[in-house]
Amino acid sequence: MDLLRSQQVSPSARSKVLVFGAGNFGSCLADHLAHSEHEVFVWSRSPNVVKSLNETHRNPEYLQDHTFPAGLKAIGPEFPSPEVVRDMDVLLFAIPTEGTLTHLRPSLNEDDLPLMIYVNKGIEINTQALTLEIIADTCGPAIAKASTFISGPSFAKEIVRRQPTSVSIASLSKEAAQEASDLFHQPWFRCYTGDDPIGVELAGALKNVYAIAAGIADGLGFENNTRAMLITRGLAEMTRIGTAYGASPLTFLSLAGVGDLFLTCSSTASRNFTVGYRLGKGEKLEHILDTLGSVAEGVSTAKGLKKVIDDLGVAAPIATSVYEVLHEGQEVQERSRALLCLPAMSELELPSTPGRPAQRLMQKLGIEM
Amino acid sequence: MDLLRSQQVSPSARSKVLVFGAGNFGSCLADHLAHSEHEVFVWSRSPNVVKSLNETHRNPEYLQDHTFPAGLKAIGPEFPSPEVVRDMDVLLFAIPTEGTLTHLRPSLNEDDLPLMIYVNKGIEINTQALTLEIIADTCGPAIAKASTFISGPSFAKEIVRRQPTSVSIASLSKEAAQEASDLFHQPWFRCYTGDDPIGVELAGALKNVYAIAAGIADGLGFENNTRAMLITRGLAEMTRIGTAYGASPLTFLSLAGVGDLFLTCSSTASRNFTVGYRLGKGEKLEHILDTLGSVAEGVSTAKGLKKVIDDLGVAAPIATSVYEVLHEGQEVQERSRALLCLPAMSELELPSTPGRPAQRLMQKLGIEM
Repeated sequence: MDLLRSQQVSPSARSKVLVFGAGNFGSCLADHLAHSEHEVFVWSRSPNVVKSLNETHRNPEYLQDHTFPAGLKAIGPEFPSPEVVRDMDVLLFAIPTEGTLTHLRPSLNEDDLPLMIYVNKGIEINTQALTLEIIADTCGPAIAKASTFISGPSFAKEIVRRQPTSVSIASLSKEAAQEASDLFHQPWFRCYTGDDPIGVELAGALKNVYAIAAGIADGLGFENNTRAMLITRGLAEMTRIGTAYGASPLTFLSLAGVGDLFLTCSSTASRNFTVGYRLGKGEKLEHILDTLGSVAEGVSTAKGLKKVIDDLGVAAPIATSVYEVLHEGQEVQERSRALLCLPAMSELELPSTPGRPAQRLMQKLGIEM
Repeated sequence: MDLLRSQQVSPSARSKVLVFGAGNFGSCLADHLAHSEHEVFVWSRSPNVVKSLNETHRNPEYLQDHTFPAGLKAIGPEFPSPEVVRDMDVLLFAIPTEGTLTHLRPSLNEDDLPLMIYVNKGIEINTQALTLEIIADTCGPAIAKASTFISGPSFAKEIVRRQPTSVSIASLSKEAAQEASDLFHQPWFRCYTGDDPIGVELAGALKNVYAIAAGIADGLGFENNTRAMLITRGLAEMTRIGTAYGASPLTFLSLAGVGDLFLTCSSTASRNFTVGYRLGKGEKLEHILDTLGSVAEGVSTAKGLKKVIDDLGVAAPIATSVYEVLHEGQEVQERSRALLCLPAMSELELPSTPGRPAQRLMQKLGIEM
């Protein structure tokens, strides 16, 4: 945006950053940091992506219209060597975490760890573990506690055009969150720090399930009042689930919470919303997934989430209904009717004690509850 | 909606309801209650509206396409007599409160008070008093404490077509909130109760100011990421202001909070959004207000809110910027640039002690802080 061009903040130190993954969000964050005077490397396992980024400064698979800065270097397809990893100040993870961390673990120097930032968040479908728990399992509690999560309402295609964007940056380590904020912050990419990575992660994963619900409502022909109800009651469920998982309810008021939920549920460009919309129009899930052309994370998250909800023992009728429609073949009309016919209730009841998954995670992090 | 038609909940008792005001929201709530088997009277000071509602079951000024049920009776233009008022179980206020309450006060029987429900909320421009404070001033603390507020994402034109809608119902009296919920609740009009009328009222008033901000951003050409940022950071400001006013921060997660904010900021049909949008396009405020054809509450609320913000001593840069654009002639481009150039910050800092307006209100309600 023109009126901001002259307002760029120069970093106090130039960082060496390695981004794992040249997908949509990985590419755009690499682009952003390279434009902010940092030395940025992006690792891809696709030889074609590496070659194209280095030679034409284009990513053939994502953000195809965008020219990346010449200073951005792509490496791969071999996994980066320990020497390369140890030379970095920042590692940014924009691909599934578990395999990458296992690969990476021997390269990390315990006495001089880089800042480790994660863009992906989710519930592992079999174990229902959050990324934070996977980090603790693979790398131990010290690395998990310094891990930093970045999340918020941020379409990559708008970020590369410098449309003003904002994100939540959360870590159990206040210093790590501040470092990540210093790294990313610009007038067109505003950073807001917090200390609740569990809430930020859960919100980022769960929003996709509620985007499917919002899409279903649209597909069924419901209008603005109903969409606002679904988003708000979805947020109440997310807050209830998060609180039972040890998160702060206030995190759901954040950019990673309501901000990202709002963006995902009000954009017909969202894949998860589209799956819901087509279900609402009467299409079969199998056919939708066959023809979607990309992955809708909400479909698998709904499965993991169902187990989490049962484990935590919280009420989450919207998420449960989405699960029943996606994975138990229930009819969208009938599930919608049943939801609307639930009795009136008190608006914001939160669980008073954390559930089992929260206890397991805190134990792994070495945090007393 | 067809799939709900057979699911109507019958009230346990038939109530006599008097609705003050035949505007958009007053009319649609009167319609809703009359369809739910209650005996409903709507008072209007317009002889034409009274005649038309009684003879053709149409409101010539609002919801013109809608046919109201034959059982709905309009009264007026004279203010209802004490006998009529004392015969009512429920009084529903859908017009400015102060004058109505002053008129009504002598008709109220202290030993047998009706349920009193308010749809309007706001900050009185000169005194910065909330409706709850005006009720305490005019009718005393007992009536204020039993007052019930109804608010949420609810376009009237969708409610009369039974588009599923949901609202927050809040009162310091748990019993009053429950009674109001029992009165209104239907599968297509879902009621969620709470005990924070201050938060519900503030959210309802403040959202209009942030809708102007969202409109400005749209008018300036900003896209989805920026709108989501503005809504979320606006919500953070509302939460900060509300907390300093004695409200619970969690109320801003409610239907009256984020739900209504979301609806107002994402609908180009909203008057406040339109004012902002045209400002963003470079039009002058005076010209916009001259040609708008209706009132945009956010314009005057911004003025009252500025005083509240100063009195409470909280940071609210978005609301302050809207005030400066509307009432001090500042340029939208320059104010937007200044907002985006604020330093990075921690995401959800809330005031730890309530400010002066909160203390004044609690004193009037006879509540210890």
